[in-house]
Amino acid sequence: MDATDRAAAELLDAQDPLAGFRDRFVVAEPDLIYLDGNSLGRLGHAARQRLAEAVTEEWGRGLVRSWPEWMRRPAQVGDLLAEHLLGARPGEVLVADSTTVNLYKLAAAALDARPGRRVVVTDDDNFPTDRYVLEGLAAQRGLELRMLRTDPVEGVRADQVAEVLDERVALVSLSHVAYRSGALADMAAISALARAAGALTLWDECHAVGAVPVALDADGADLAVGCTYKYLNAGPGAPAFLYVRAELQPHLRQPIWGWFGQRDQFAMGSRYDPAPDLRRFATGSPPILGVALVEEGAKVLAEAGIGQLYAKAQALTGLLVELADRWLAPLGLTLASPRDPARRGAHVTLAHPDALRISRALIEQAGVVPDFRTPDRLRLGPAPVATRFVDVWDAMDRLRRLVHSGAHEHAPLEPSGVEPETTP
Amino acid sequence: MDATDRAAAELLDAQDPLAGFRDRFVVAEPDLIYLDGNSLGRLGHAARQRLAEAVTEEWGRGLVRSWPEWMRRPAQVGDLLAEHLLGARPGEVLVADSTTVNLYKLAAAALDARPGRRVVVTDDDNFPTDRYVLEGLAAQRGLELRMLRTDPVEGVRADQVAEVLDERVALVSLSHVAYRSGALADMAAISALARAAGALTLWDECHAVGAVPVALDADGADLAVGCTYKYLNAGPGAPAFLYVRAELQPHLRQPIWGWFGQRDQFAMGSRYDPAPDLRRFATGSPPILGVALVEEGAKVLAEAGIGQLYAKAQALTGLLVELADRWLAPLGLTLASPRDPARRGAHVTLAHPDALRISRALIEQAGVVPDFRTPDRLRLGPAPVATRFVDVWDAMDRLRRLVHSGAHEHAPLEPSGVEPETTP
Repeated sequence: MDATDRAAAELLDAQDPLAGFRDRFVVAEPDLIYLDGNSLGRLGHAARQRLAEAVTEEWGRGLVRSWPEWMRRPAQVGDLLAEHLLGARPGEVLVADSTTVNLYKLAAAALDARPGRRVVVTDDDNFPTDRYVLEGLAAQRGLELRMLRTDPVEGVRADQVAEVLDERVALVSLSHVAYRSGALADMAAISALARAAGALTLWDECHAVGAVPVALDADGADLAVGCTYKYLNAGPGAPAFLYVRAELQPHLRQPIWGWFGQRDQFAMGSRYDPAPDLRRFATGSPPILGVALVEEGAKVLAEAGIGQLYAKAQALTGLLVELADRWLAPLGLTLASPRDPARRGAHVTLAHPDALRISRALIEQAGVVPDFRTPDRLRLGPAPVATRFVDVWDAMDRLRRLVHSGAHEHAPLEPSGVEPETTP
Repeated sequence: MDATDRAAAELLDAQDPLAGFRDRFVVAEPDLIYLDGNSLGRLGHAARQRLAEAVTEEWGRGLVRSWPEWMRRPAQVGDLLAEHLLGARPGEVLVADSTTVNLYKLAAAALDARPGRRVVVTDDDNFPTDRYVLEGLAAQRGLELRMLRTDPVEGVRADQVAEVLDERVALVSLSHVAYRSGALADMAAISALARAAGALTLWDECHAVGAVPVALDADGADLAVGCTYKYLNAGPGAPAFLYVRAELQPHLRQPIWGWFGQRDQFAMGSRYDPAPDLRRFATGSPPILGVALVEEGAKVLAEAGIGQLYAKAQALTGLLVELADRWLAPLGLTLASPRDPARRGAHVTLAHPDALRISRALIEQAGVVPDFRTPDRLRLGPAPVATRFVDVWDAMDRLRRLVHSGAHEHAPLEPSGVEPETTP
């Protein structure tokens, strides 16, 4: 069937084994097409219920008596992420802090573990906070930040990394899925190259976790971080996670010596003595209510299965690309993501000189929520757990009508109540 | 009236202008006497309602369209804390990260601002995470950590600080209210001494904010941090706050160069260029739901007024001390907090060789929730916003009966479901 026929999308929905999962989520405005699940995921019914129980029973009734149970949660939920979404072993993933703080902690730990090496490698299309954190650490330590010039559509390639690796490189830090283009990096190949050169790897899984199968252990990653408010649906500013390969844990120390990293925390001893295991990467009191939301978000994805989620993501973005080729390319909207589905995550980006105005107009006039990314990118993230094929079809239909009509040309660029450019 | 007569406590409650505030909070077990509000505050009805609305409306319905409003919240709620509880100006307080991470950021910023100075001053009774963070920074930079030997009852004195200050001291970092004894440090005197010596001050307000009037600007503090899950009642692991004196902001840089500290965040530019103001001390995505809880917690305290809260705290701890003298001293429980109410915060600590067993037995057998602190301290925090005078009276009555009976001697020391020693 022709993809431009809406019945084709309806058929895909009818055959979708994950179709029922949409009902797990709050859909407050059924006519709104939400294609920004890769920025902030939807609220799940179970998450809302769990949060209410945690607030009323664990906090309201239990008060400090809940802490023995709460103490275990960040590692327990980390293990849940490890098993179902990250391809890691128990004791390798901890829910803690923000992605930015975790990047800082793990990058600093890696640099300390390679004291003779003076170079940090990342790429110029890496997410801003990753680049800035590495820039800061390099500046503070007098290191060289070697910035790969990446193709903004195809993403970082293993052979590019190979070219800059030498015995002076301490750390290679990249995103597994690029935040703008959605390009999927070859984690196994790059990690193997880095290891062969004696460098450690630190992977940002923010746009990968819950969207593509991640195999940190099997692919030879050393360190990783990621957030939980995108595909994991844990809510705005939910706590992040960190991964440290088990074999490395005793050999790495992070710079923020907080009491939650202390071996015998409640002895409150006079000197810092870090826990021998993953707990040494903890800092302060964990955000308990946020951790509960991460758990609920992960449970829904675990039930759906990352294999099925990834298959659906490829099908959704495949439909999106096909319709973009057919309808939007003639209107000047060009694909700025890898065309090969095996080379991308679960979102797709289109380029247009007026992308910011189009993004605004889509929200305000067409009931479609996309994302704008500088300088000229319209990012579309049909989160597979809650997005239908007809949502993609309808969004692309509304988008082509909007651009064809030229109505977006009148959308204001000034900040409004729905500034798409101020969306983390 | 004799304090040992329960009618005296009833009279104090009848005259208490804050008596009605107890009804603002969830009291799930009316017979349970909760004296650990200085560890984890109670759940407020307004907080529960606000959280439910933020989840359902802002996240569930608004989705990413809520970010423009969310972006402003950490500074807005910081301003609320500044005005009503911290004695600071607008733009000096930000809700962000955890206390531990904020301590690290601000201590590192201070050390960078005093590059020629090689000494950090703190005290051996400071909270563990404060000591560990400073120990870590000193170790990483090859600095000397000068640890004041503090009287564990009376707390750190200004003349002690004066003795160790010289032109080599970069930073003096102390707690405003000591976590064990409740001793109140003379922030104005110590800050003046440090400034005269050319050092910066970093104050931990965790046990002070919401309990005593804090005047960061007037008392000459340079930097401060604090948590919101104690007297502010923002829930387990709620986000912390940081304070940077306005005049210092352009001159200090913190080490975690995250995108939320970037001047033009959504330009996603190639180099880190920190915001000129307080925002440069932000790191990653703020925990929005937690920030909403901080706001609700602060609003209740603002309505009660910190002056009235402090007056009630002094009266509550005064009653506690008087009953301890009369009833508990003969049983071997001795006061381990300053006797002068002007020299302490809102909690009181008693010492007893069997304090851990007594703490366990109080929870399990007597319906009183205290806190145990190493090595032999029973910490009692009657949070003034939600604790009645009869609660203090009844708790002391139950405590004397328990210790008199010797029933606590059979309480197990092994971990149980209500391990008081695993309470942050």
